Amino acid sequence: MRLRHKPWAADYIKENEGLMVLDPFEQKGKWQDLFEKNQPIGLEIGTGKGQFIAGMGAQYPDENFIGIEKAESIIVTAIQKVKDQYLNNVHLVHENAEDLRDMFAENEVDTIYLNFSDPWPKTRHEKRRLTYHTYLEQYQNILKDDGKIVMKTDNQNLFEYSLVSFSQFGMKLEDVTLDLHELDDEMNVMTEYEEKFSSKGQPIYRCIAKF
Amino acid sequence: MRLRHKPWAADYIKENEGLMVLDPFEQKGKWQDLFEKNQPIGLEIGTGKGQFIAGMGAQYPDENFIGIEKAESIIVTAIQKVKDQYLNNVHLVHENAEDLRDMFAENEVDTIYLNFSDPWPKTRHEKRRLTYHTYLEQYQNILKDDGKIVMKTDNQNLFEYSLVSFSQFGMKLEDVTLDLHELDDEMNVMTEYEEKFSSKGQPIYRCIAKF
Ligand SMILES: C[S@@+](CC[C@H](N)C(=O)[O-])C[C@H]1O[C@@H](n2cnc3c(N)ncnc32)[C@H](O)[C@@H]1O
Ligand SMILES: C[S@@+](CC[C@H](N)C(=O)[O-])C[C@H]1O[C@@H](n2cnc3c(N)ncnc32)[C@H](O)[C@@H]1O
Repeated sequence: MRLRHKPWAADYIKENEGLMVLDPFEQKGKWQDLFEKNQPIGLEIGTGKGQFIAGMGAQYPDENFIGIEKAESIIVTAIQKVKDQYLNNVHLVHENAEDLRDMFAENEVDTIYLNFSDPWPKTRHEKRRLTYHTYLEQYQNILKDDGKIVMKTDNQNLFEYSLVSFSQFGMKLEDVTLDLHELDDEMNVMTEYEEKFSSKGQPIYRCIAKF
Repeated sequence: MRLRHKPWAADYIKENEGLMVLDPFEQKGKWQDLFEKNQPIGLEIGTGKGQFIAGMGAQYPDENFIGIEKAESIIVTAIQKVKDQYLNNVHLVHENAEDLRDMFAENEVDTIYLNFSDPWPKTRHEKRRLTYHTYLEQYQNILKDDGKIVMKTDNQNLFEYSLVSFSQFGMKLEDVTLDLHELDDEMNVMTEYEEKFSSKGQPIYRCIAKF
């Protein structure tokens, strides 16, 4: 994603305290307290400009959503999107998701969404892929026993890699689709990348996996 | 596959006793005795016209191969292909593979190849798919502990289904590729269907899975 420097971004994030969770590590074990209703939590890692998280918040009022995005100049767009829709079931976090166990207690999350995660194609960068086994360990820890990971991507190699990584970790694949948009699934909420790639005719891959 | 009636096929199969295993149920537990060398056994279910099994036999002289094909008028072409190449590490079986446990003892097989298996797209025919769990039970029984299934197909839905079916059965995916021919893998031996579909530019999917 193109990172244009936005000098006002840091201030804008602070001004939106409330929607933004400024100290997410303080929130560990108490995320439900932030929301109006106690209901299942969906966590997106790498929220980007927020089209997905805002869309999910609007479409699923009976769920709570948290989006983590490390890039300041990108998350500001997500803030705007969530505010535009007056969503009270979405919170955003400006952080680098390194160890999610510092931010979430065991069993605190119901679903983890990985949307168009950076592919890190070089083998020497394998550890950075969000489906590398060290990340799966974190996800397993913070997810409820019946919790799931929902992954979408246009990247063939990352998808192949992730299917094998889930499986080798002992996870079970619940669903695999190699062309999500062929299904015309009205429940599907598109991300920015998804819209861009699928409008070019590229297939979108999706996998749902459980520990 | 188009089934043209070949009135001479039944006789031709019998004439080729030796290459053809006429009573495969008698062979249970003793397949190695049929081959010149005691070496790993690869079993293909639905061998078709034999391009794969003949190609594998030629390319891997240190392995033994058995191909099962139910259609008389198709297997005769496989017989011709294997004979043309004077292969002593390939045997063929004209049978409907219903319960492989009647034909093979526990741990008798090293690798099972499923190439472009009939997709049976209707849900009510799910049981007929060669990756339905009742088939996986058979494969698990006849395969060595470290044995594997290698599946290739052009059929997206069958592939998606099979990945989930393997995983739900508790198998582990060792490798998944969504475009086999992109890899330029010299070790890959093409089947008739593979040649046909890939020459039309369709991607070929492959998965390697273990129990
Ligand atoms: C390729 S973009 C996809 C954005 C969005 N999910 C979509 O589908 O349109 C990946 C995003 O993940 C963010 N990201 C990557 N690694 C991250 C991490 N460890 N923690 C937080 N955000 C991360 C990047 O800054 C970028 O905005
Ligand atoms: C679609 S064709 C593929 C042929 C070949 N494997 C290839 O890739 O070119 C499937 C073949 O499997 C055979 N077949 C299907 N079910 C079978 C079974 N239960 N036992 C033996 N052969 C079977 C069919 O007769 C047919 O020749």
